[in-house]
Amino acid sequence: MSILENIRGPRDLKALSEHELDELAEDIREFLIQAVARTGGHLGPNLGVVELAIALHRVFDSPVDRVLWDTGHQSYVHKLLTGRQDFSKLRGKGGLSGYPSRAESEHDVIENSHASTVLGWADGLAKAGQVRGSDAHVVAVIGDGALTGGMAWEALNNIAAAKDRPLIIVVNDNERSYGPTIGGLAAHLATLRITDGYERALAWGKGVLRGTPVVGRPLYDSLHGAKKGFKDAFQPQGMFEDLGIKYLGPIDGHDEPAVEAALQRAKRFTGPVLVHCLTEKGRGYPPALQDEADHFHTVGAMDPLTCEPLAPSLPSWTSVFADEIVAIGEERPDVVAITAAMLHPVGLTKFAERFPDRVWDVGIAEQHAATSAAGLATAGLHPVVALYATFLNRAFDQVLMDVALHRCGVTFVLDRAGVTGSDGPSHNGMWDMSMLQVVPGLRLAAPRDADQLRAQLREAVEVDDAPTVVRFPKESVGEPVPALARIGGMDVLHGGGDTEVLLVSAGVMAPVCLHTAELLEARGIHCTVVDPRWVKPLDEHLAPLAARHRLVAVVEDNSRTGGVGWAVAQSLRDAGIDVPVRTFGIPEQFLAHAKRSELLADIGLTPVEIAGRISAALARKENAE
Amino acid sequence: MSILENIRGPRDLKALSEHELDELAEDIREFLIQAVARTGGHLGPNLGVVELAIALHRVFDSPVDRVLWDTGHQSYVHKLLTGRQDFSKLRGKGGLSGYPSRAESEHDVIENSHASTVLGWADGLAKAGQVRGSDAHVVAVIGDGALTGGMAWEALNNIAAAKDRPLIIVVNDNERSYGPTIGGLAAHLATLRITDGYERALAWGKGVLRGTPVVGRPLYDSLHGAKKGFKDAFQPQGMFEDLGIKYLGPIDGHDEPAVEAALQRAKRFTGPVLVHCLTEKGRGYPPALQDEADHFHTVGAMDPLTCEPLAPSLPSWTSVFADEIVAIGEERPDVVAITAAMLHPVGLTKFAERFPDRVWDVGIAEQHAATSAAGLATAGLHPVVALYATFLNRAFDQVLMDVALHRCGVTFVLDRAGVTGSDGPSHNGMWDMSMLQVVPGLRLAAPRDADQLRAQLREAVEVDDAPTVVRFPKESVGEPVPALARIGGMDVLHGGGDTEVLLVSAGVMAPVCLHTAELLEARGIHCTVVDPRWVKPLDEHLAPLAARHRLVAVVEDNSRTGGVGWAVAQSLRDAGIDVPVRTFGIPEQFLAHAKRSELLADIGLTPVEIAGRISAALARKENAE
Repeated sequence: MSILENIRGPRDLKALSEHELDELAEDIREFLIQAVARTGGHLGPNLGVVELAIALHRVFDSPVDRVLWDTGHQSYVHKLLTGRQDFSKLRGKGGLSGYPSRAESEHDVIENSHASTVLGWADGLAKAGQVRGSDAHVVAVIGDGALTGGMAWEALNNIAAAKDRPLIIVVNDNERSYGPTIGGLAAHLATLRITDGYERALAWGKGVLRGTPVVGRPLYDSLHGAKKGFKDAFQPQGMFEDLGIKYLGPIDGHDEPAVEAALQRAKRFTGPVLVHCLTEKGRGYPPALQDEADHFHTVGAMDPLTCEPLAPSLPSWTSVFADEIVAIGEERPDVVAITAAMLHPVGLTKFAERFPDRVWDVGIAEQHAATSAAGLATAGLHPVVALYATFLNRAFDQVLMDVALHRCGVTFVLDRAGVTGSDGPSHNGMWDMSMLQVVPGLRLAAPRDADQLRAQLREAVEVDDAPTVVRFPKESVGEPVPALARIGGMDVLHGGGDTEVLLVSAGVMAPVCLHTAELLEARGIHCTVVDPRWVKPLDEHLAPLAARHRLVAVVEDNSRTGGVGWAVAQSLRDAGIDVPVRTFGIPEQFLAHAKRSELLADIGLTPVEIAGRISAALARKENAE
Repeated sequence: MSILENIRGPRDLKALSEHELDELAEDIREFLIQAVARTGGHLGPNLGVVELAIALHRVFDSPVDRVLWDTGHQSYVHKLLTGRQDFSKLRGKGGLSGYPSRAESEHDVIENSHASTVLGWADGLAKAGQVRGSDAHVVAVIGDGALTGGMAWEALNNIAAAKDRPLIIVVNDNERSYGPTIGGLAAHLATLRITDGYERALAWGKGVLRGTPVVGRPLYDSLHGAKKGFKDAFQPQGMFEDLGIKYLGPIDGHDEPAVEAALQRAKRFTGPVLVHCLTEKGRGYPPALQDEADHFHTVGAMDPLTCEPLAPSLPSWTSVFADEIVAIGEERPDVVAITAAMLHPVGLTKFAERFPDRVWDVGIAEQHAATSAAGLATAGLHPVVALYATFLNRAFDQVLMDVALHRCGVTFVLDRAGVTGSDGPSHNGMWDMSMLQVVPGLRLAAPRDADQLRAQLREAVEVDDAPTVVRFPKESVGEPVPALARIGGMDVLHGGGDTEVLLVSAGVMAPVCLHTAELLEARGIHCTVVDPRWVKPLDEHLAPLAARHRLVAVVEDNSRTGGVGWAVAQSLRDAGIDVPVRTFGIPEQFLAHAKRSELLADIGLTPVEIAGRISAALARKENAE
């Protein structure tokens, strides 16, 4: 029996000898490589925090002491040490979450896997401890990349404000450039300017981009794919000292006794203290270490020896965007691009290779992405801000107040829109089509296939006096869905004559709507399926078309609350058309991790369910009449 | 003719002698005091930037060079120097905006008056300048308080990243504690810890709160009413140097030649540079300088000699909240409060006096307000986060992902909800009831009068497993609106039997709905007016009640898009009830500055307009039938 198998909880760690701790670390790495290769998941970051997690759970008494993990993808080791060793269904329905989960364990606190939140949580917990006279410790683990987010700064400003309120910040600094030069770099750090680091990182980025492609792995859809550009930029010691936070470090994060010693010192401190740990992403797994791009930040299911993926990867929406934005950039020298620490995952690497002076990585800083884009647009350029849909939530105020109020031509490209699945509740891109409804002048496109993505992206960058948004999902891009006819700016995908039911399909729901129409036609209910293409503002031809039907059904891969369905209903009311409307989308709840197809079935976004509810509504209407 | 009157634009400044410049500064102060006393507006901040604005417009060539003002309430002097000297209708319909306005002048860039945005705008403009090979200068003026916002940090991190991209940051540091000790403090600053500053500021706050009340002014509804608590905390020199931004200062911001000299130096610099100017809020106006609270940050119309308000101030919604939260705090030791740099304007001063250890000012940091509240709630406290409604936009992601996903009992109290008027587009609180619709589990109350505010605040703080929101407007709290009956959790305000039209009134629209009902009754159309009290989730009795009517009209002081009207329509659809719905709210547009009553009339939120449209809809329906 391995040491790891004997660890039922943090208490079992405390009696282990140094030799046994080494063995445990080895067990954990072997376990992680085998387990994550089977299911896919976050590998590199977890291989980097093995000793750190062990030390944290030896020094502190979770769950009385609160050990908090920022972003959460670095919590696998923490899970293994807190009684969760069945990784067989990791990130799958009924299996362990890929992030901390309160439902799984009393040792987990933060389920939100958007970055930079941990210091805010920690500040709140520490303040509560002070009010309640508790002497439990609050320990926040945050990556160096996450410190580029504004929330982290707001929190630091508060944490530093109370020297009598203990709080331990562990900076998990896994930038490789720190690796070989830990000792020698420490002195140099004091004079490092953000400029130098940034330039070196850019140079590094270019080198990588021009190098040979990494073989054998699907898309690195990592949160931090591009954060390296900001690693060197961050020189914590001076800044934290200025703020008045005690600084301990840098510590070799793979020297478990050294980490323990630093944490013990931090634990005795009566105010805010920062422990700066240098770790290596992918530690102990040569293929990860050799991967220049992101040290296997996230992997799909793969062979752990050859790293060949178990399933072939299909062409993605991201790659369609990646090619088209380069083509647009060739024609339009005013088109520039912005990424929030995710150059590769959002498909901007080719653009960056081709136009290195026209792309900026702003860090995990969606607010700045939006507002600096407003500045770029005001100066006559057309910025394309590429984000995951869920992360645009961070920039709602800036889209509204900086971009829209000033009528700036900025195009937001939202990848991973809709139900994304395995990453759990905080990664679904299911709020954009609701949140953005209120933004005056904003135009929102939901392309249904690759051709539409290309066409609508081009339409979007033509708009120079308002924000435009193009949103598409995570999965592979499907077959083209041809239009039978066009009414105004809308595509008719099915029917089109005198039919009973009008199905309004938003974006990628087109195949579901077509299948729904088939099921309804089989029951003798004639349907028209229309894709408005631009779901905001709605086409003026939609209301008259709806008026010729007995029922309108709107289907969208977005929160049903506040989304396209609600907007369609309003457009009919405004036209004085009181045809009944039914809306099909994601119910007002957070979705647990599972496959996208499983989730869509769970929430009833399937042709069978939709067709059933439409015919029931029609039957009730007939009875009422 | 005064010197000021001869200034038609920045060019006219350049030929003035030092003596004439002194005279000009005097002219401007006299003008500001007289003009702002007549209309009300931001006084203290503008008196503080007279020399700074003059120097900026002498050194730089606006509008080729871009001079950007953060938050914008400090732009009056800039207006005077750029051809706008008619302040007679300042902040009124058809008059000058209280903030920069592109429609007014080519010298204005940023209209958004939410804080901390200017560095993001400047970064975008500077990047565009680099791409386009422009050598125009970009100058961003930001207050020390605004630097506590996360956006400012995200921008600094980016600005500092390019040492070959010129950008001038002017920190307008108007903290009084800097005033008398400029020289002596400079050396001390290097060792200042944020802790010390914070504690001194807290002590200062207590002193003020216990002191004599300031006589003769209406509520200080300043954005930065409480930012002083974070002034001392900010020790810029060290931090900026760490980041690699050249630092010039501190400069006496009232020594115009000194400011000019510093700006000239900054202008020659080829990378990012920061000029730290120390200014005095209220400079040159003894009543402002003597005002301990906020140096006349904002004033209503007043006598400039006695400072007596020209109109009596009526009891405000804020004061009702202020008293009730203290009463709740007496009963509930777990209730704590958070403000984002606005302790006084949001009505938390009494609570802070009574429970100094249970209130935190987090700076202009709404994201941190929400996420630290989630931490406090997780530790068993019940935080009440008091904000202006429009500023909650900054924390959408945190409300959704930190508070709601984790089922934290946090109460958000939103002051200045709805149409606020004179502060212009970015201060209307017209998005909260839309934006918050998608948040699972969230409960949203819109009280219609003081009694309801007290009752619903108490109901809100009882909820311990979900976010709750209580929103109310800026104006004075009106007469009580009594309920005739209660159906479920809803109050019936008019009618209630078998009527034709159901008017659903959200919050403060109750009197408008009652008047509308009277007008309709006079036309023989019988109405019921119901106040759902909690507009999210909607009461289960609403749909059955609606089913008994021929038309449902929803009236709200919020964006019509995505708001209560849309939610009511959905609740009817979900119940299979297809009674026509009409929604009345704020159209999907930004509202220019004017009085609230003028704006409501402009957008048709008046009884006459609503009654007219309802009867027209009924008539059309009858014709159709």
